[in-house]
Amino acid sequence: MSSDHLKLYESSGSPNSRRVRIFLAEKRISVRRVPVNLGTKEQFSEAYAKINPRRVVPTLVLEDGTAIGEVPAILRYLEEAYPNTPLLGTSPTDKALVTMWERRMELEGFAAVMETIRNKVPGLKGRAIAGTHDYEQIPDLVERGRQRIADFYADLEIRLGEAPFVAGDRFSVADITAVVTVDFATKALDLAIPDGNSATRHWYDKVAARSSFAA
Amino acid sequence: MSSDHLKLYESSGSPNSRRVRIFLAEKRISVRRVPVNLGTKEQFSEAYAKINPRRVVPTLVLEDGTAIGEVPAILRYLEEAYPNTPLLGTSPTDKALVTMWERRMELEGFAAVMETIRNKVPGLKGRAIAGTHDYEQIPDLVERGRQRIADFYADLEIRLGEAPFVAGDRFSVADITAVVTVDFATKALDLAIPDGNSATRHWYDKVAARSSFAA
Repeated sequence: MSSDHLKLYESSGSPNSRRVRIFLAEKRISVRRVPVNLGTKEQFSEAYAKINPRRVVPTLVLEDGTAIGEVPAILRYLEEAYPNTPLLGTSPTDKALVTMWERRMELEGFAAVMETIRNKVPGLKGRAIAGTHDYEQIPDLVERGRQRIADFYADLEIRLGEAPFVAGDRFSVADITAVVTVDFATKALDLAIPDGNSATRHWYDKVAARSSFAA
Repeated sequence: MSSDHLKLYESSGSPNSRRVRIFLAEKRISVRRVPVNLGTKEQFSEAYAKINPRRVVPTLVLEDGTAIGEVPAILRYLEEAYPNTPLLGTSPTDKALVTMWERRMELEGFAAVMETIRNKVPGLKGRAIAGTHDYEQIPDLVERGRQRIADFYADLEIRLGEAPFVAGDRFSVADITAVVTVDFATKALDLAIPDGNSATRHWYDKVAARSSFAA
C-alpha cells in the first residue's frame, strides 16, 4: 500500500529507524523516506528541530503536519491506521503481552546496547543520552552494559526455549526489536548471540531471513 | 465496575503500582488488590517469582491465569478490555501522541528519578536496576540523575506552556505518569517543582486534585 502522504525522517544506519522500516515492510506500507544525515549532525539543525524537538530519528510526519516521535508511538499510529497484518497483537490479552515483551526487549536489550555505545565511543563524548540535553559519559556504564547484554542474551535464550517467538506463538513487533538488538550488539560491540544459545540461534535464523529484515 | 476476576499484585508505596491504581480509579474499575510486601522483600519469594519472573510489582493476573507485567502493558490491557473513559487516546493520531508523551514522561522523568534513587540508597546496594539481575550502584549516576530531573522539569514547563495537559487538550495517561513522577521526585529526593515553573504548578494543582490521585 502506497502512503505517500506519510513522511518518515530517518537514517539508514540508525537502529531505531530500522525498527520502523522493518515494521513498514512487514505491513507492506510504503512511505516517503526523508534521510537525515547523522554523520553531519543534521538532526541538530534548526530545520529538523522544528520537526522533532528532541533532535532524534526517526520521526513520522502525517499529511496534516502532525509529527510523531518515539518508535513505539510511530508503530502504534501505523498499526491503528493500517490494521492489516497486525504486529501489536489482536485480543486485549495479546496486545498486552506483546507490549510487555516488546518493552522487555527494548529496555533490557536495545537500551542496554545503546547505553553501552553512548558511554564508550569517543565521538559521543558529552552525548551519553540521546535527546535535547548533554550528559557526560560515565565509563563504568560500559562495563555494566556488557554485563546487561550478557544477561539479556541469557534471558532471551530461556524465553525462546519456551515459545517459538518472543511474545508467544506468533511473529510480532517484539521479534523485530529483538532482532534489531542482536544485530546492533553484534555490529557495534562485537557481542553476537553466544555460542550454545541454540534456541536463540534457531529463532534468529528463522526470523532474520524474512524479507522485511533487509529494510 | 467491579472486576473481581482481575487480581492486581502491588505495593502501596510503589510508584509503579500507583500509576495503575490511578488509571483504575479514573476508569472506575475495581479489582482485587493483593499486597506484595517490598519491606520484607516478598517480591523475591518463590511464590511471587512464579507470578512475575522479573520479581517486580505491579502484575495484573487475569481470570485465566495470564500474568501481565510492565505498567504500559497492564494499562493497555485495561484500556482494551474496558474502553470507557479512554486514557490512551481515541483516533490513531491521538493514540500515537499519547504514547509519545507518556513515554517521554516515563523515560525522561520517572526513569531518571528511579535511577537516581537506586544508585543512591544504601538499602539498594547491588540492586541498581530492578529485575532479575544484580547490578552494583554507580555513584556518578546520582549526580547525573539530579541533572536529568532538572532538565525534565524544564522541559515539562515548556510543554505545559503550550498545552493544558501533557499530551494536548485532554487528560491522559501522560498526566498520570507525570504527576506520579513529580510526587516521587518530591518525596524521595526532595526535588519538587522548581519555584517559578508556573505552568507546571498550575497543571499540577488542577490534575493532582482529581479524586483518582488519592489512589
